[in-house]
Amino acid sequence: MRADRPLARRLLGESVVLFRDASGDATALANRCPHRFAPLSGGNVGADGTLGCPYHGLRFDSTGRCVHNPHGDGRIPDAARVRRFPVKERDSAVWIWMGEPSLCNAAWETTARFPFLSRDENEISTGYLRSEAHYQLSADNLLDLSHFQFLHPDTLGSPAMAADPGRFEQRGDTVWSLRGTCNEILPPFVAQAFGVPPGMPVDRRLAVRWDPPGLMEITITVSPTGQDLGRISHSAHLLTPETEESTHYFFAFGVPKAVGPEAKQLVRFAVDGLMTPFAREDLPMLAAQQASLGNRDFWDALPVLLPIDGGAIRARRVMARRREQEQP
Amino acid sequence: MRADRPLARRLLGESVVLFRDASGDATALANRCPHRFAPLSGGNVGADGTLGCPYHGLRFDSTGRCVHNPHGDGRIPDAARVRRFPVKERDSAVWIWMGEPSLCNAAWETTARFPFLSRDENEISTGYLRSEAHYQLSADNLLDLSHFQFLHPDTLGSPAMAADPGRFEQRGDTVWSLRGTCNEILPPFVAQAFGVPPGMPVDRRLAVRWDPPGLMEITITVSPTGQDLGRISHSAHLLTPETEESTHYFFAFGVPKAVGPEAKQLVRFAVDGLMTPFAREDLPMLAAQQASLGNRDFWDALPVLLPIDGGAIRARRVMARRREQEQP
Amino acid sequence: MRADRPLARRLLGESVVLFRDASGDATALANRCPHRFAPLSGGNVGADGTLGCPYHGLRFDSTGRCVHNPHGDGRIPDAARVRRFPVKERDSAVWIWMGEPSLCNAAWETTARFPFLSRDENEISTGYLRSEAHYQLSADNLLDLSHFQFLHPDTLGSPAMAADPGRFEQRGDTVWSLRGTCNEILPPFVAQAFGVPPGMPVDRRLAVRWDPPGLMEITITVSPTGQDLGRISHSAHLLTPETEESTHYFFAFGVPKAVGPEAKQLVRFAVDGLMTPFAREDLPMLAAQQASLGNRDFWDALPVLLPIDGGAIRARRVMARRREQEQP
Repeated sequence: MRADRPLARRLLGESVVLFRDASGDATALANRCPHRFAPLSGGNVGADGTLGCPYHGLRFDSTGRCVHNPHGDGRIPDAARVRRFPVKERDSAVWIWMGEPSLCNAAWETTARFPFLSRDENEISTGYLRSEAHYQLSADNLLDLSHFQFLHPDTLGSPAMAADPGRFEQRGDTVWSLRGTCNEILPPFVAQAFGVPPGMPVDRRLAVRWDPPGLMEITITVSPTGQDLGRISHSAHLLTPETEESTHYFFAFGVPKAVGPEAKQLVRFAVDGLMTPFAREDLPMLAAQQASLGNRDFWDALPVLLPIDGGAIRARRVMARRREQEQP
Repeated sequence: MRADRPLARRLLGESVVLFRDASGDATALANRCPHRFAPLSGGNVGADGTLGCPYHGLRFDSTGRCVHNPHGDGRIPDAARVRRFPVKERDSAVWIWMGEPSLCNAAWETTARFPFLSRDENEISTGYLRSEAHYQLSADNLLDLSHFQFLHPDTLGSPAMAADPGRFEQRGDTVWSLRGTCNEILPPFVAQAFGVPPGMPVDRRLAVRWDPPGLMEITITVSPTGQDLGRISHSAHLLTPETEESTHYFFAFGVPKAVGPEAKQLVRFAVDGLMTPFAREDLPMLAAQQASLGNRDFWDALPVLLPIDGGAIRARRVMARRREQEQP
Repeated sequence: MRADRPLARRLLGESVVLFRDASGDATALANRCPHRFAPLSGGNVGADGTLGCPYHGLRFDSTGRCVHNPHGDGRIPDAARVRRFPVKERDSAVWIWMGEPSLCNAAWETTARFPFLSRDENEISTGYLRSEAHYQLSADNLLDLSHFQFLHPDTLGSPAMAADPGRFEQRGDTVWSLRGTCNEILPPFVAQAFGVPPGMPVDRRLAVRWDPPGLMEITITVSPTGQDLGRISHSAHLLTPETEESTHYFFAFGVPKAVGPEAKQLVRFAVDGLMTPFAREDLPMLAAQQASLGNRDFWDALPVLLPIDGGAIRARRVMARRREQEQP
């Protein structure tokens, strides 16, 4: 998010404009001037951190209040306000709260954290893809390590990983999907990402953590067979609903700067390497699932449940309960 | 509108075919053969001024009656008629009445006139743009001289014009938006359009006239500061609804032939010059407003009203009252 | 339909996957894995004739039953089935029954036959076009020989053919549209298709046969004027609904191998030659009719009926009665 230019993004079906105020703080407003409904994202951010409407030049501060009417006597109607959404920058991401304002602080406190994305101590690389599917289909996909062998045979899949039936855990509202291998020869892309020489046998452990509403961390540990010390990779996968049928998929890798000068290369290599299977294999599959579902609810389509769905089912149950609790 | 070829145009959501009969008179019919619903605009106009269906060759006269069936015994069912819409050519435009037929003559009598568009005495140049917005958003835009400074800073905007708060007037159902400057150095495009040498101070007056349902004239007078005699520019802006969310925007300039040989150049320069700000600045803004509104009514979106909206509000009130009166 | 790769096709609004089982028999299943709704057409056909889901590798046999779960203990839930549609290969086409299963055999028995499309004795050439119109509009078009002169003036139309008013017959649910000429000089494309030397007068007879729901045969006989022996061309026109507003239009010519080595060229020339008027003249007209109709029923749009519609009306009545009979 740049400081000199507003950014338009559709979130939960609403058009939102993001910009930085005079202190550099991230700000989110409804992207619609209350005067003539022009998109504020087409305007400019002033030196005073106000955002100007591109149509008639009304200016809004970071609370959403109109603070300047350049016309006539300059009076400003009290109704000249746009909705402001609380935002917070944390773990190298801008977080927005679009729900009931009084629940905002509780939301910040309970939102999952990604300490490996703090820029002070880590080299970070980020990726973005837009998925034409409901965000929960993406979460299902990431919690399910069994599809690697079928959808990503040339990059992420491996017979050894497929052989482990895996297991699922839940603590509170956090869900884990776990899987591991022993004495495995890694597929070339994975070997290279972890700096493992070709042909060297390793033990590999994958842990996918899901937190509501769709905030995921994948931790991969690779160590020479039988040894405890190995390399750890941390990545965040932040599923942000754009509409009921599309998702902003933000993902990021972080490696401690302490690792040395190759830290930068490691995170860049990981993001670049995943772009291909994500964009060419996962995204078309997710879009095809959504097209199959149409606008039906997932459960109304009566999916057949398999043990491999253990993570997805747990996460969907957490979300179903949460949505129910939010109803008045 | 050419004489040798029918023209299809969607108006008020209906597909209409326009053509000229044997006397050269403009004719408008529903663009749908009553036999198999083929678009008549794909057919040909005969020497007898009838329009032939491209599918089976039925021919229709300017009243919409089928007058020729080329098949079998050639009998013509009585129901083989298409709806005819009354049209009138006047002020270099083809006018169509799509409402209750008995109100047609009253409509012609009360429709705004544009005498500077009569071809006998004037050189005329015309422009056309399609706007992806409700036609009243275009009228709002044209009645509002305050957006020039923000949306058209490089062509139409000027600090002097922005300094005048402007005023609005209404006589009957005609609304005026007025604004003027004294001792102004014109922006280059405007100076050139009025033949004012660079750096010469002038007085400028803008008058935007609106008549229902969206027929507008913009009159601009430019005279050397302190003098009464100056140059006058007249333009027509005819907003024709295509659908609920799109508009045919016809505009035209007329200059008396008496002005001399440069009259032709003047009108061409004016149309060409406005194409750029209209197409690149107004049209995207209008489409963005419409997208913000979606299919909501303008008032249901609760716009904040400012004094600069005085013209738009008056015009919208006239239209609201007229629509109400048309209800049985 | 290839043996090595599944084929996706939308039929009656449903996505269907077609593939060949281990015996080479055509198989049709709902194109949606019951587990996660992935399209099975993205998967592979195994040597055992099962179809694998591209997402998680579940495999389905030709009855639609899941026969392989590659994960964990491999157990297969009883609900892991997809709907199977009966299919039959006959007359060089794959026929599918998507209605009430108990009526399937009756359907096969009463479905129109196209013996000139049996590959044993005939050279066959096939064409495919997708029409953006309801399939009954295509049937109307083919049953109506009167539009040739207007829509296809340069290829199929001829003044002699237009002069015959034609006639219609109905036996049971089969409808015929018939027309003929005597002592006609054929249009060049037709003359070439029948190997008639330029300028030679012939007698020509066209017979269009329609069977429910939209299976048509066009038989054309061309013989030197006054002679009984001539050349006969048979073509099939199989209208398969894709959605309510689009149609798969399959057509095919068959010529007995006994005709000799030019049989192959004859069928290829016929298919290639019809592609142009079908694709450039009929398809745009059908799409324009559909656009005029929108989602209204044909009869609700109150078409004017002419004698030339005799075939179309009979066929539409048969279908209306059949649809009524299918209601419980």
